[in-house]
Amino acid sequence: MTAPVDFWFSIGSPYTFLAVMRLPEVAERAGVDVRWRPFDLRAIQAEANDGPFADKPLKAAYMWRDIERRAAKFGLPVRLPIPYPLADLALANRVAVLAAKEGWCSAYTIATYRRWFVDREPAGSEPNISRSIEEAGQDPVRVLKQASTGAVAEALNAATSEAKKIDIFGSPSFVADGELFWGHDRLEDAIEWQHNLDQGNPG
Amino acid sequence: MTAPVDFWFSIGSPYTFLAVMRLPEVAERAGVDVRWRPFDLRAIQAEANDGPFADKPLKAAYMWRDIERRAAKFGLPVRLPIPYPLADLALANRVAVLAAKEGWCSAYTIATYRRWFVDREPAGSEPNISRSIEEAGQDPVRVLKQASTGAVAEALNAATSEAKKIDIFGSPSFVADGELFWGHDRLEDAIEWQHNLDQGNPG
Repeated sequence: MTAPVDFWFSIGSPYTFLAVMRLPEVAERAGVDVRWRPFDLRAIQAEANDGPFADKPLKAAYMWRDIERRAAKFGLPVRLPIPYPLADLALANRVAVLAAKEGWCSAYTIATYRRWFVDREPAGSEPNISRSIEEAGQDPVRVLKQASTGAVAEALNAATSEAKKIDIFGSPSFVADGELFWGHDRLEDAIEWQHNLDQGNPG
Repeated sequence: MTAPVDFWFSIGSPYTFLAVMRLPEVAERAGVDVRWRPFDLRAIQAEANDGPFADKPLKAAYMWRDIERRAAKFGLPVRLPIPYPLADLALANRVAVLAAKEGWCSAYTIATYRRWFVDREPAGSEPNISRSIEEAGQDPVRVLKQASTGAVAEALNAATSEAKKIDIFGSPSFVADGELFWGHDRLEDAIEWQHNLDQGNPG
């Protein structure tokens, strides 16, 4: 038995795209399991008085160019510029929490990011949400109804509290055996960390 | 003839350690030349109302753990915690500007970072500065006298203005054929960018 790596993410974070698209393959190659853990980054940022380079135009401009170059490096299609900033992301992340509970979170999250980065459908809005749910093999009517319940809203809040408790401050983040890794460019480090543990302590 | 990659850095930036220590080897392996370009990051940050995670304790704590892990990954000795934050860094960076003009900037910068990260001598203060100058084969008396002239202070200001003009906002940064790469974790990307250009345009 090996422990999974927790993949903490918020739909709406641009750099998270590069992790979402590459994580399944990198983890599978290393034989490492991943738990997809959606949380509400905006709630944490608001509390920390932080934000997505909001008042840092140079960093924001750099980010898009960096994402473009790295996507090319990894062979990921993108069609920049894409819609940004985004409106309310709560529903998209509530759907992700429900999807994680039901076992179709990776398919849904990959779909919503591809629609945002390739089809230029804003994440967090329709038609992106419903189409991504469908791509994951689910019924949008059922899912959207359930994602609007207080129970799912509470589940997202609980996940966010848990993220905060373990000092997560950005998306994407990875936690392997209590070690926190931040940023899509630490994906390999996190998976390798767990892989090395697994090698040293075979079940 | 191939163009060099410009390596823009400020002594005092913690993450810059990981670039300073690895750059010579990575660049040499790729057959890429590097120009060491010291600048005054604090001047740029002050103007942009930015800073080294000053009011972001979670990010700061994460940074040190991340540096520790990455140093281990790269086989670089470090003895954390090291002195931080640092006092005035202007003289250390003026010496770097003078060293760049005279051709011993990499030796001096590597020495000052090793003394800070391994010997725990604060960068920017004595004895770190004089010993690092000596390690680079220079006479501290001569260098410190010259680094205190207005001409060298102006050279650092001019380099900082040039950095600002090309939208540099952090250290370390790399510029390859006009492409800006930010962060020690983009070192390979920057060198590869120039290397690929060189391959496509030999001689």
